[in-house]
Amino acid sequence: MGLSCFSGSRGSDLQWNKQSPVGIIGGQGEMGRLFSNFFSSRGFRVNVVDLGTVYTSERAMRECDIVLFAVPLHKSVEIIRELVAFARPGQLLMDLTSLKVATVAEMLRSQAGVVGLHPMFGGGVSSFSGQTLAACPVRISSQEWQSLRRLFTSSGIRVKECSPEEHDRMMSIIQVLFHLTTMLMGRTLRELGIDIHETMEYTSPSYRIEMNLVGRIFAQNPELYAAITQMNPNTGRIFSELKESLEVYEGLYKSENMEGIVEDFKRSALHLGDFCAQAYRESSALLDFSVQTANEKRNNPPR
Amino acid sequence: MGLSCFSGSRGSDLQWNKQSPVGIIGGQGEMGRLFSNFFSSRGFRVNVVDLGTVYTSERAMRECDIVLFAVPLHKSVEIIRELVAFARPGQLLMDLTSLKVATVAEMLRSQAGVVGLHPMFGGGVSSFSGQTLAACPVRISSQEWQSLRRLFTSSGIRVKECSPEEHDRMMSIIQVLFHLTTMLMGRTLRELGIDIHETMEYTSPSYRIEMNLVGRIFAQNPELYAAITQMNPNTGRIFSELKESLEVYEGLYKSENMEGIVEDFKRSALHLGDFCAQAYRESSALLDFSVQTANEKRNNPPR
Repeated sequence: MGLSCFSGSRGSDLQWNKQSPVGIIGGQGEMGRLFSNFFSSRGFRVNVVDLGTVYTSERAMRECDIVLFAVPLHKSVEIIRELVAFARPGQLLMDLTSLKVATVAEMLRSQAGVVGLHPMFGGGVSSFSGQTLAACPVRISSQEWQSLRRLFTSSGIRVKECSPEEHDRMMSIIQVLFHLTTMLMGRTLRELGIDIHETMEYTSPSYRIEMNLVGRIFAQNPELYAAITQMNPNTGRIFSELKESLEVYEGLYKSENMEGIVEDFKRSALHLGDFCAQAYRESSALLDFSVQTANEKRNNPPR
Repeated sequence: MGLSCFSGSRGSDLQWNKQSPVGIIGGQGEMGRLFSNFFSSRGFRVNVVDLGTVYTSERAMRECDIVLFAVPLHKSVEIIRELVAFARPGQLLMDLTSLKVATVAEMLRSQAGVVGLHPMFGGGVSSFSGQTLAACPVRISSQEWQSLRRLFTSSGIRVKECSPEEHDRMMSIIQVLFHLTTMLMGRTLRELGIDIHETMEYTSPSYRIEMNLVGRIFAQNPELYAAITQMNPNTGRIFSELKESLEVYEGLYKSENMEGIVEDFKRSALHLGDFCAQAYRESSALLDFSVQTANEKRNNPPR
């Protein structure tokens, strides 16, 4: 494989190929297992490191041509910082955490090749087909990156290339804004003592979907969601905008300025542009599917 | 049909039956048309009143045994107030607006029978099957109400009975909380100048669905959403809770208290209880459907 250095940075000749040993730090976690299986099935020799394994992180750093960090987000910077001391030129370091600026910066402290990855799917997916993987190929030769990229795309994965900064800015919307509004909903339901099952008796299809997405978040790992909010470099900005918006809306409400609410609504619709009509079409198909599923459940209740 | 008076209130003998003339005020709007067709197809003689019709509201109030108000929410109280002066004992008044306390109170000023209705679906649905209709049968004999109820359920509609107060409290969650957080998202995207199509390139399936629901709202009638927020008797309370929650979360964020965020997250999850696991299962089916649809679209793009 071609081993020239990407954009002349201090990145070094990469020496991995399909027979290379791959070390997966945190390889027994859900995402770690998914990527262990992925690399194994592609012919790589995978060495799993986790809390209970005999094979250690230091050994993986010394022996493996590719090291993949599949560690919890809130511990990622600390773990990577400790281990990059053992990295060497020619090695390829990658990570799978939900934010890219901080972990990529740590990996760049080494002389190794660096690619930050963020799978936009959970470790429990049944198939890679149609899933998206965000990728920051920050220190890798173009040729080498194309090989790695093909490894993913040939499994049906869509690879979205971006810089770590672009990535984290987009995640401040996709993750932080979305999670914060979900947490606001959850806390409001709790503080008002609302019985969620009671509200579901009124189910409009869109409310049913909305509430299922809210419930889905709360069925998952609190540490991950806390870290995603705490560690995104743009979270402060999101808080400011949410607070300002809430004040604006409350002001309009208190002064019974319905015209003002309509005006603001129209400005947001204008900003979203043709996306609204497209979203209406796509969500209508989803609502039909949801109503149908609920009907089937009602007619064939589980025993 | 039995015409005894419901729970001894001043409600009067109802005299409608399946041959009765039905007047639909606002019968040319989307929801008005849907219910015109519904009553026509059930054998009733439907008289449509709208801005351009020769047949007037006053005439409908005098001649029709059943009068259904299918008017815009923000004008509903005013219109009903003006027309109930023409109502008579034995007549049945109903409305289709999204809130029930205010319109039902106006209809109760008459001596007529009163049932408030709120279809939890849009006027554009292709089928009634599996859709939910919230109903407040506040002044109608039990027997009469059962006949009316059967009229709806025999078309596959699920009827959810509730008092106007219960209804509006539930709608402060289902509508106000949901719409306000959607408007917060819309305004934040706009103020930060985020290109929504750019974020969609990172699509995780759940973000895709979430954004489609946001876009769906903004594809619809701003006046309706403004009125739903402005006119719900519990909106002030929702604003208070959202503001307090946002302050709590910002405080935790600024003091880097991730443990506090985790703690709050767990309390909300506990409040939602077994709903979370159920929502996770149901939304997973939805995400699979969404990924599949997106794949098909990618493989067969529209020309």
